[in-house]
Amino acid sequence: MSLLIVGSIGIDTVKTPFGKADSVLGGSASYSSVSAGYFSPVDLVAIVGTDFPDEYRFFLESKNIDMEGLITKKGKTFRWSGEYGWDFSDAKTLSTKLNVFAQFDPVLPEKCKNADHVFLANIDPEIQYKVLQQVKKPKLVLADTMNFWIENKNKELRKLLKKLDIFLCNESEARQFTGEGSTVKAARSLLKLGPKKVIVKKGEHGALLFSDHSVFCIPAFLLETIHDPTGAGDTFAGGLIGYLAQCKKYTRQNLRKAIAMGTIMATFAVEDFSLNKLGGISAGDINKRFKKFQELTCF
Amino acid sequence: MSLLIVGSIGIDTVKTPFGKADSVLGGSASYSSVSAGYFSPVDLVAIVGTDFPDEYRFFLESKNIDMEGLITKKGKTFRWSGEYGWDFSDAKTLSTKLNVFAQFDPVLPEKCKNADHVFLANIDPEIQYKVLQQVKKPKLVLADTMNFWIENKNKELRKLLKKLDIFLCNESEARQFTGEGSTVKAARSLLKLGPKKVIVKKGEHGALLFSDHSVFCIPAFLLETIHDPTGAGDTFAGGLIGYLAQCKKYTRQNLRKAIAMGTIMATFAVEDFSLNKLGGISAGDINKRFKKFQELTCF
Repeated sequence: MSLLIVGSIGIDTVKTPFGKADSVLGGSASYSSVSAGYFSPVDLVAIVGTDFPDEYRFFLESKNIDMEGLITKKGKTFRWSGEYGWDFSDAKTLSTKLNVFAQFDPVLPEKCKNADHVFLANIDPEIQYKVLQQVKKPKLVLADTMNFWIENKNKELRKLLKKLDIFLCNESEARQFTGEGSTVKAARSLLKLGPKKVIVKKGEHGALLFSDHSVFCIPAFLLETIHDPTGAGDTFAGGLIGYLAQCKKYTRQNLRKAIAMGTIMATFAVEDFSLNKLGGISAGDINKRFKKFQELTCF
Repeated sequence: MSLLIVGSIGIDTVKTPFGKADSVLGGSASYSSVSAGYFSPVDLVAIVGTDFPDEYRFFLESKNIDMEGLITKKGKTFRWSGEYGWDFSDAKTLSTKLNVFAQFDPVLPEKCKNADHVFLANIDPEIQYKVLQQVKKPKLVLADTMNFWIENKNKELRKLLKKLDIFLCNESEARQFTGEGSTVKAARSLLKLGPKKVIVKKGEHGALLFSDHSVFCIPAFLLETIHDPTGAGDTFAGGLIGYLAQCKKYTRQNLRKAIAMGTIMATFAVEDFSLNKLGGISAGDINKRFKKFQELTCF
């Protein structure tokens, strides 16, 4: 099964109460691809500038990621700088420089057009839609978004939603999108817009999966130490679709396991800055934590 | 197995975005006793004034609750009035009149001194301690508290904690008590103060159980409609200890089931004002929702 991931690659500068990471690898496609790569080969489609360090390129290549779809454009790579306080639920953005990312309008390599699984990470929903149009027969399409697009490209986002198997958003985005105060009602409204399923991410409180006639709740895996929450949502999405891509069937059980796997993968991401921890774990580490998670939540 | 519950009985006036309930039965002991009574006979110890309506007295008696320990004192019953906005996590207290509750200093009836299980609902920790001293050989003691006592009777609360099997608090109270920003670290600090286990209630996000070497996470049971969150925590505690009181052993599995049962019971409490819904359910309703909850959370 082939898995296409389209999103951003950036150079991040992040400050948290536990330290600072200067000019490190970031971006939605980096986190999600590395996470997914533990389960399934990934075809990455993203854009970087000529300043993009070789070491990051080699690192991504080493993580089960095919880089044929990585466009290198003259200019600088997307840069983001942000800061977290003790409440890790929201980053304060200090600066965003789109740089070459402003020109991202990918023409998919031939191979990617045959992708079975597609994750459209958080980028302009118009681009997400245009990418999806190029994929011939996707079996499962997952997309993420953010408050900015809900506000500024609402129509385009609604158009995309009709094409999705799973729409991913966080709790406040679900409420913002639908104007519903209750998360359950917000998710039901989102389902009416087209996606077959909606996953609401609740950060340190876990996640919820909604489909027409059922709900699945998963708590978060408790960590004693969180060093940098950047990329947690993307890592969750990558683990989720990576796990699904290697399943033979999309049974309810497999979908639930995929959500649990996404949750587990996100815990590795937040234990260190950038992809420092997430990029260096083994299949054994993942399975051990997954088993512990099952054990911690079963009653 | 006998179960003693000590706490407040009050007359509440509550306003939520869904309506208003005027002068209805409330109080930590009412919610927790009715909840526990579905699983195990309860001995209730509380105080009311001569104005306490007979219909509430008869109602409690009809719910598997022995009222021998209910003191009726000349004067008025404890009254509380509060309001909730769309964020149900915090009530705005409009007025509190302690009335006869200010003189609550119970001498336990002989029968209650032999209680196996004790739930000390949220009252002055000095009174909680004095009550506990009168119980000869309790097998399991659970106690709840609130921010007011953490601030104003910290020493007394610490004294009580040494005697507890399970200490119950919400997330912000755990942080306030310990000065720890992380819930995990706060719970670990609380364990060092004496209780064998700590349960952190997270409202709509579920609950966490901490013991020396393990953690158990449970999500909340998602409801489409919440009419009045008053008493949710007390109902949770009542379901928890009521379920444990009818278990032959305190295995890890039973404790987890008890927490799940407490979660389920709380959902009935919040679906209507006062004890309107909680007081009128059947064993079948409880089992059905419990099974649904297991089904919703298993992966």
